[in-house]
Amino acid sequence: MALIVLLSGPNLNLLGDREPEVYGYTTLADLVDDATAAAGKRGHEIEHTQSNHEGVLIDAIHAARGRAAAIVINPGAFTHYSYALADALAAFEGVKIELHISNPQAREAWRRHSVIAPYVTATIAGLGREGYRVAIEAAADKIASA
Amino acid sequence: MALIVLLSGPNLNLLGDREPEVYGYTTLADLVDDATAAAGKRGHEIEHTQSNHEGVLIDAIHAARGRAAAIVINPGAFTHYSYALADALAAFEGVKIELHISNPQAREAWRRHSVIAPYVTATIAGLGREGYRVAIEAAADKIASA
Amino acid sequence: MALIVLLSGPNLNLLGDREPEVYGYTTLADLVDDATAAAGKRGHEIEHTQSNHEGVLIDAIHAARGRAAAIVINPGAFTHYSYALADALAAFEGVKIELHISNPQAREAWRRHSVIAPYVTATIAGLGREGYRVAIEAAADKIASA
Amino acid sequence: MALIVLLSGPNLNLLGDREPEVYGYTTLADLVDDATAAAGKRGHEIEHTQSNHEGVLIDAIHAARGRAAAIVINPGAFTHYSYALADALAAFEGVKIELHISNPQAREAWRRHSVIAPYVTATIAGLGREGYRVAIEAAADKIASA
Amino acid sequence: MALIVLLSGPNLNLLGDREPEVYGYTTLADLVDDATAAAGKRGHEIEHTQSNHEGVLIDAIHAARGRAAAIVINPGAFTHYSYALADALAAFEGVKIELHISNPQAREAWRRHSVIAPYVTATIAGLGREGYRVAIEAAADKIASA
Amino acid sequence: MALIVLLSGPNLNLLGDREPEVYGYTTLADLVDDATAAAGKRGHEIEHTQSNHEGVLIDAIHAARGRAAAIVINPGAFTHYSYALADALAAFEGVKIELHISNPQAREAWRRHSVIAPYVTATIAGLGREGYRVAIEAAADKIASA
Amino acid sequence: MALIVLLSGPNLNLLGDREPEVYGYTTLADLVDDATAAAGKRGHEIEHTQSNHEGVLIDAIHAARGRAAAIVINPGAFTHYSYALADALAAFEGVKIELHISNPQAREAWRRHSVIAPYVTATIAGLGREGYRVAIEAAADKIASA
Amino acid sequence: MALIVLLSGPNLNLLGDREPEVYGYTTLADLVDDATAAAGKRGHEIEHTQSNHEGVLIDAIHAARGRAAAIVINPGAFTHYSYALADALAAFEGVKIELHISNPQAREAWRRHSVIAPYVTATIAGLGREGYRVAIEAAADKIASA
Amino acid sequence: MALIVLLSGPNLNLLGDREPEVYGYTTLADLVDDATAAAGKRGHEIEHTQSNHEGVLIDAIHAARGRAAAIVINPGAFTHYSYALADALAAFEGVKIELHISNPQAREAWRRHSVIAPYVTATIAGLGREGYRVAIEAAADKIASA
Amino acid sequence: MALIVLLSGPNLNLLGDREPEVYGYTTLADLVDDATAAAGKRGHEIEHTQSNHEGVLIDAIHAARGRAAAIVINPGAFTHYSYALADALAAFEGVKIELHISNPQAREAWRRHSVIAPYVTATIAGLGREGYRVAIEAAADKIASA
Amino acid sequence: MALIVLLSGPNLNLLGDREPEVYGYTTLADLVDDATAAAGKRGHEIEHTQSNHEGVLIDAIHAARGRAAAIVINPGAFTHYSYALADALAAFEGVKIELHISNPQAREAWRRHSVIAPYVTATIAGLGREGYRVAIEAAADKIASA
Amino acid sequence: MALIVLLSGPNLNLLGDREPEVYGYTTLADLVDDATAAAGKRGHEIEHTQSNHEGVLIDAIHAARGRAAAIVINPGAFTHYSYALADALAAFEGVKIELHISNPQAREAWRRHSVIAPYVTATIAGLGREGYRVAIEAAADKIASA
Repeated sequence: MALIVLLSGPNLNLLGDREPEVYGYTTLADLVDDATAAAGKRGHEIEHTQSNHEGVLIDAIHAARGRAAAIVINPGAFTHYSYALADALAAFEGVKIELHISNPQAREAWRRHSVIAPYVTATIAGLGREGYRVAIEAAADKIASA
Repeated sequence: MALIVLLSGPNLNLLGDREPEVYGYTTLADLVDDATAAAGKRGHEIEHTQSNHEGVLIDAIHAARGRAAAIVINPGAFTHYSYALADALAAFEGVKIELHISNPQAREAWRRHSVIAPYVTATIAGLGREGYRVAIEAAADKIASA
Repeated sequence: MALIVLLSGPNLNLLGDREPEVYGYTTLADLVDDATAAAGKRGHEIEHTQSNHEGVLIDAIHAARGRAAAIVINPGAFTHYSYALADALAAFEGVKIELHISNPQAREAWRRHSVIAPYVTATIAGLGREGYRVAIEAAADKIASA
Repeated sequence: MALIVLLSGPNLNLLGDREPEVYGYTTLADLVDDATAAAGKRGHEIEHTQSNHEGVLIDAIHAARGRAAAIVINPGAFTHYSYALADALAAFEGVKIELHISNPQAREAWRRHSVIAPYVTATIAGLGREGYRVAIEAAADKIASA
Repeated sequence: MALIVLLSGPNLNLLGDREPEVYGYTTLADLVDDATAAAGKRGHEIEHTQSNHEGVLIDAIHAARGRAAAIVINPGAFTHYSYALADALAAFEGVKIELHISNPQAREAWRRHSVIAPYVTATIAGLGREGYRVAIEAAADKIASA
Repeated sequence: MALIVLLSGPNLNLLGDREPEVYGYTTLADLVDDATAAAGKRGHEIEHTQSNHEGVLIDAIHAARGRAAAIVINPGAFTHYSYALADALAAFEGVKIELHISNPQAREAWRRHSVIAPYVTATIAGLGREGYRVAIEAAADKIASA
Repeated sequence: MALIVLLSGPNLNLLGDREPEVYGYTTLADLVDDATAAAGKRGHEIEHTQSNHEGVLIDAIHAARGRAAAIVINPGAFTHYSYALADALAAFEGVKIELHISNPQAREAWRRHSVIAPYVTATIAGLGREGYRVAIEAAADKIASA
Repeated sequence: MALIVLLSGPNLNLLGDREPEVYGYTTLADLVDDATAAAGKRGHEIEHTQSNHEGVLIDAIHAARGRAAAIVINPGAFTHYSYALADALAAFEGVKIELHISNPQAREAWRRHSVIAPYVTATIAGLGREGYRVAIEAAADKIASA
Repeated sequence: MALIVLLSGPNLNLLGDREPEVYGYTTLADLVDDATAAAGKRGHEIEHTQSNHEGVLIDAIHAARGRAAAIVINPGAFTHYSYALADALAAFEGVKIELHISNPQAREAWRRHSVIAPYVTATIAGLGREGYRVAIEAAADKIASA
Repeated sequence: MALIVLLSGPNLNLLGDREPEVYGYTTLADLVDDATAAAGKRGHEIEHTQSNHEGVLIDAIHAARGRAAAIVINPGAFTHYSYALADALAAFEGVKIELHISNPQAREAWRRHSVIAPYVTATIAGLGREGYRVAIEAAADKIASA
Repeated sequence: MALIVLLSGPNLNLLGDREPEVYGYTTLADLVDDATAAAGKRGHEIEHTQSNHEGVLIDAIHAARGRAAAIVINPGAFTHYSYALADALAAFEGVKIELHISNPQAREAWRRHSVIAPYVTATIAGLGREGYRVAIEAAADKIASA
Repeated sequence: MALIVLLSGPNLNLLGDREPEVYGYTTLADLVDDATAAAGKRGHEIEHTQSNHEGVLIDAIHAARGRAAAIVINPGAFTHYSYALADALAAFEGVKIELHISNPQAREAWRRHSVIAPYVTATIAGLGREGYRVAIEAAADKIASA
């Protein structure tokens, strides 16, 4: 059994609460439940942190070192400028998956560039609610094949 | 009566304390007093937060959702890179006014680009001390006309 | 009592006449009335010029020199390329306020750059109909504090 | 039961044949077998085309219209310049998943820009051999939730 | 009587078949019929090729050399990157007209640049269904005045 | 019968007068005659204005509102920087055709970018003397199909 | 005896009137007097036009065709964006000298690029009051050597 | 004896046929004869393919793997955008020489950038007819020294 | 005796713990010891703060105002985007030294640009473990010469 | 009487020797004679140095300090990259005139940018043979008015 | 018999001396011997100059004028910025070949741009030791065919 | 005892001689004295060369190979374009320190980019007079720890 650290960046706490008629009633808690269930099926455990504070996410990545086999991170808007987060991920030696709910390439120009992507194992974007579960399963696959 | 959340970004706590012979003796507290008085005249209330921490400002924007009718924000240097703050403001549905004491267009090149501006209702810049009061009044106008 | 020169750039004469079901029935004349009333309350006088001709606006700025205490200008599309207008404003020593009805940062990419902004005292954008009145009041404030 | 069209772009026919001591002995045929098995488990069928000819891939996307529920495409180097492929995908109304075996963000600068990404539902990159299977499963999930 | 070679690039075979409630029921065959009729009125003949394969279009341009008096080409997405097509057109010495159904300048940023335009006689864009006929007539005019 | 406003931008008054051995003896008056004849055949009327003054052209576009069914404009060098002209055209709701005698894509680099093109219905460039007539005919076609 | 057309662009009418303690008491009239005297010594005549209107300057350039042997132009801020002025100068076949009082290369970044310079015979910048006289003498030299 | 695969990209089939008074009467067949003769002198064999189809060239590169000791390729306009060709060459482990008849650095700006060059052993450009022979000899030298 | 505030940015807490066979066993504590010893020799005191939180570093810079004679800061990845940190340093009036252990110019492209450097007295980069001590000595030198 | 140092940069020694049927028979010696005569009329002396060595020109600028009242320099191609020459000129406190025989703005793109221009008093370009004399006279004027 | 001037730019004197286990023991003298032998076989003579001084190379190019039939130059790092060298080569009317030992397109980004290439007849890069000989032979070919 | 080669680039010979009321009376000789003393304390020797000639500095770097343990270089303006100097330093295998007296990041934009920095061990900038001594000490430290 391995630990998978699941990180959600700024504003993701608003999921499901904001314009539910548009975005649906899925909350971040629902997504974490999905992820936890998917991890459980593979015999793994999830430790989830959501924060609007870049430093809290960096601390969580550091805390994952030596304890977790994988990090799945939805960096939210930090994707586009947090080189500090990128450096933190570069120092984590396990599986690293960057996750986006929507497809950032189909939105504003500034969302097209990820400063984090060069430092992760894989990127999964645009799968909506399914993304969290798929990312956990992919992380489990990579842990298994490591 | 409505609530107007007033946010001041990094380094604005130094106002009035730094080189008073140059910048004058107006402190951030003075500006907040001006804003509170202006809001009071319109029958509104001010809730002010200053922070050097991006995450604290994002949390404050989230906390304004469902409670405040307007946010007036002087993002300081976060103006130029905090896409996370921009996303947070985009999720607030009331009136949003970006405020700058000086005119960023007349300073260093990097101050000319605001990542936040596309997501606010209005921008007011360069009015110095009067800016806080004018922004509150403008927010009150927009609340009235909403 | 001071003179405030109010200038409206190209295409602003169409306000209220174009797609009123979308933009409302407020005409430029209404906005000038608002501005005149606001100036009157502060004991000031308005002199308004609208032109689709860059040279007419420059001439009007020159004519304001030595007579007016402030210029409030909505440069319309000249905002984005008229360095001649910028030079004219740089030669006016009173208060200068750049005014936009909509928020140019939330529209086409070419509207994000103002060649005029570095040469004005302050910028007010996105306040809609209220913008003209707020800009006049702000100009009056700056005249008072000069 | 639905049809999933699986497309592999230029040079992908070399997989497993080129430097096996480095890239391993997994061939494109192996990946297609994985994809077929994964689709079969979900009750779907795979139709695979590999081509070094842009036009053949466009023709295959056209042929998928009205027949297939999803396209999973690894565009290879066409990712970076084939606007014609992007237009073809834009005209397909089902689920579209862009797939990369390696993480293009961690390689040469020119691999960082995808002209196709704005026109797909989702992107999956960097999962290596697992990528084909994960993409098929994700396509099946999206078909199910459509 | 002269030959006018009419070329249609990638994805244009989908015209009329894709979202007819939006784009109308005009098919590429209809447009070719229009073009043929217009050519006929001027005593000219049309030879039409549509292909999603860049090479097929280049071959067709080569085949037009010494036989055709004009080429009318709607290059589709090849407009934006096919320097090979540009070189082929540069080697054709008759009248060359670049044709677009929609106005590429009013769409995504990447559609604003044509690598082909410097090598043609004329460009006609945005006329919709009428574009094919107008382009043929214009080619006939240029043949007549040559 | 409809009115088509024909506009010719800066320096076009020199046509036929400048280097006739190179450019031919066709004057702007000849082109307007061509346009008038073509419009007449379709039962339409031409109102032509040439000016070296941007403001005169904007005024003429405004004057066309509610009176004309189409504007055909050869903006000359204003093509490349007059956002004010672009805004004026955006406010005209009829057919709008941008016309160039030569092919700007085959000349200096600065002629390759049109700030006006995103706001017109169609663009016709490079047809030489025939361009004026073709543009009028195309405008008539679009009026007919509107 | 030849005619030299001397043109002064926007805001140059303010010379000597604006901050005389900084710029000195030399007015544009003084500079024209200098130029007239210098031309007179060489047996030439000056025809001077100052305008804040781009169109007036273009008209004046057109009027110089066939009458003047040289144009000396201080385009002011039009230097940086008026391609229409550039085209007008390109159509004048005599000697063309671009003149600047200050050195634009030592000021704001946007002053470093002249859209006019590729179309003139010569450029003289930074000579202050002497510039007008030197430019007239240089024009006379070029007329003499033509 | 080794095999040298010689590849000629789009439009090169027109050599000698197009404007012979300018380019001379040397055809591609002549150049291949030169190359064959030069290879023969070194004991090598030539296999030549010309195509206007990118995919055909990629297929030919793949077919060279394990059979040829060197590839000499004149990619024509594919030089400037075919990353797929670059990837194919990267997968060929023998000697790779990029060949241009003219000097692309002395022509249009877009010809200055080769996407292929980083993946070849050597580049030879500007030698005209001699280029094919020199490239074959250089390939033979590199084969000999490998 | 003066106070020197020593600041270490994000991820620097991992020094010595991460890949010691590569980076050595020197920890941040060791570097702070070196710095403290060097400061002690010069009669100065060190106050060290490491944080992964931008706000904590800004707060620490504010707290140094009026108490410390110098700040030595290794901003880590904040170097490349934290304009807020730059503004905070600009408000500190003592000696400011930017310190990097490795040479950022020899690494990824994004590490080549420091948004902080224009606001410091001096920069020291690439000296490895010695960097902390050298920076403290240099700060002491600048304090002495102030 | 003052000393004017005249400097000619790389390749200027070839004047008059290279393609005389194109450039005429004027040699650099002729130009220096012109300059010497012009200086003599104003009571000044010329000291001329031509070099293809950047260092020699820098040394000559240093040698002018304290001895010469003005430097007239035709930097040749050093104009476009020699920041060392720019720094040397910045350290000379007299009149500095940058001189070009042709108009660099009308040639290759790389000739449009001068790294030296921000550091000189004035620029004179495009006057051909007259340029040397005019520059000396202008230098004399500026010396007289200093 | 003709003279071929062979020029080697900065740092090329270090060949064979620097890291021989990596670069081999071939020295610049060996390469010049190769070149001399190759020239001798064709009945030509070599005059070689190596210098780390840009001016020395320019002087050598000037000295070749009227004496040499060809210049073969390995400009070393001057390739990337010496416009003065480019101008000198432009003034040489014989055959000019730019030579690089390694393939600059496969190294640092700044090595990808040659300011010299537009002014030479041909470029040969990446052939290693064989490059010098091949370049001499190619120069001899071009001399023969001139 | 080791040799440290100290190099000073263009214009540094003017230190102390130029505007002493601004820059102080410290001459380059004083700085070399400081450096020599600092080296002496560590048992090392200094060999200093100042030159305005790029080639002289390159020659000096070559001469240091095999003799010196470190090079400390203040490249002056060569910092910004001398790739030849960069290549020379890359070929020196000892300690290499780039030194600047002022902070180039706080000056003109072109001073912000160093072409040399990627090839040195360390950079020290902004320490003024102390910089030379600190750089020598740092070089001695690195020699000791090598």
